[in-house]
Amino acid sequence: MKLRRSERMVVISNYLINNPYTLTSLNTFAEKYEAAKSSISEDIAIIKRAFENSHIGVIQTVTGASGGVIFTPTISEDDAKAIVTELCQRLSESDRILPGGYIYLSDLLSTPSILQNVGRIIASSFAGEKIDAVMTVATKGVPLANAVANVLNVPFVIVRRDLKITEGSTVSVNYASGSSDRIEKMFLSKRSLKPNSRVLIVDDFLKGGGTISGMISLLKEFESELVGVAVFASNAQAKRSNFVDYKSLLKVTKIDTKANKVQVELGNIFDK
Amino acid sequence: MKLRRSERMVVISNYLINNPYTLTSLNTFAEKYEAAKSSISEDIAIIKRAFENSHIGVIQTVTGASGGVIFTPTISEDDAKAIVTELCQRLSESDRILPGGYIYLSDLLSTPSILQNVGRIIASSFAGEKIDAVMTVATKGVPLANAVANVLNVPFVIVRRDLKITEGSTVSVNYASGSSDRIEKMFLSKRSLKPNSRVLIVDDFLKGGGTISGMISLLKEFESELVGVAVFASNAQAKRSNFVDYKSLLKVTKIDTKANKVQVELGNIFDK
Repeated sequence: MKLRRSERMVVISNYLINNPYTLTSLNTFAEKYEAAKSSISEDIAIIKRAFENSHIGVIQTVTGASGGVIFTPTISEDDAKAIVTELCQRLSESDRILPGGYIYLSDLLSTPSILQNVGRIIASSFAGEKIDAVMTVATKGVPLANAVANVLNVPFVIVRRDLKITEGSTVSVNYASGSSDRIEKMFLSKRSLKPNSRVLIVDDFLKGGGTISGMISLLKEFESELVGVAVFASNAQAKRSNFVDYKSLLKVTKIDTKANKVQVELGNIFDK
Repeated sequence: MKLRRSERMVVISNYLINNPYTLTSLNTFAEKYEAAKSSISEDIAIIKRAFENSHIGVIQTVTGASGGVIFTPTISEDDAKAIVTELCQRLSESDRILPGGYIYLSDLLSTPSILQNVGRIIASSFAGEKIDAVMTVATKGVPLANAVANVLNVPFVIVRRDLKITEGSTVSVNYASGSSDRIEKMFLSKRSLKPNSRVLIVDDFLKGGGTISGMISLLKEFESELVGVAVFASNAQAKRSNFVDYKSLLKVTKIDTKANKVQVELGNIFDK
């Protein structure tokens, strides 16, 4: 398909946006759009400048025979802070407090525009790390893991708290359930994670840290490595001993069920 | 931020791709990129042509004071068929058959590039319909609902088979569980769906249809309306009486556990 330069730039931009973290050779574009490789190279230079000036992302050029370009989505710190500050306000709404001191998050974690931004912020904070998969626990972590995996363009794996026949053979570990001191089991399908994978763990809410510690034990069972832990919100009041480093977008500093108030701050992902 | 025309087209394309089904006024772009409205109008005309020629999507112009442009992602029928034909092959792999005649799908439904395409195909097949939310049942339907909701830019709601304290007040209905004739319960958080919503139901695998019938009863409880049902794969051998119309990407015509073979065809979403 032969296109004018302006149109070609639009479709190449679209391709890069939809295929992040993927090496694409300039020849692929040259053949697809029936243009000289030198023209494609000029197109990419313009797209690169526009993407970088507008903090859409970075385009890296790999030279050599097997070279090409790789698009990595980014987000500016100002944009990230503005987005999370707005989430702070949404989280502070009094009608989010559920009996027992829980916070209702499901609406935020099921809105595509929010998830997309959150995915970009978490992925950016692990820029430069090689990540093969994103891991989470069913059900509420799934949209978040999906969002981060979309940006990183890697698969996500879902750990379950129950056994389903549709998962085939599974590996299980014990973990200390957050809300109590009960020991429970979590399961991961044997074929869902290859050995030697580098894994980013994400979850919606960090309280005692039992679920995340459980997922870390699962990684050992799968001979895989932890890259890092990121959560949407963490409870600053919860006691966690010997817990791993983690990054949080939001930090809940106080849940006052009597006054029906939640205090929320920017999480440690913004710490220098 | 003042940009050259070529750069402006790149960033406007990026904006439209990331904000589908959203009306944006030309003034928004004119102010953001310090350009005349007439220049923006010309940019959009070029982007529109490029998007349409490459089947990326359609840009609709709404005239008048509250007017602007709306981007609707599309996918060509040829591309859709090619993608689903490849999925047919993936599904036919013999090592997907689990004891009991179940098929392992989790790897396909946790790969962002596959989900993105599947979301686009399902959303396109409901083009022109007003959809306020996408509904599914936990856990395996979640990534699929998330993918369709991303394209439609609407929230998704997750029906659960168990009761979680973090969901707040819920409404429950009974449904006939697929694998047996047992009657079970499914739950939806009261605040997750507004009355009078128009809802698209999606699920990973359609067998007896009990879960989907359950979700349709839930819609009635929430005074909401069914727009349609779409599934990733349907079992052509299963008996379903009085079942609603549905669209499937893939149709499993035979699961031969003895010979360890699955027969898969293109689903009825491609029927004329």
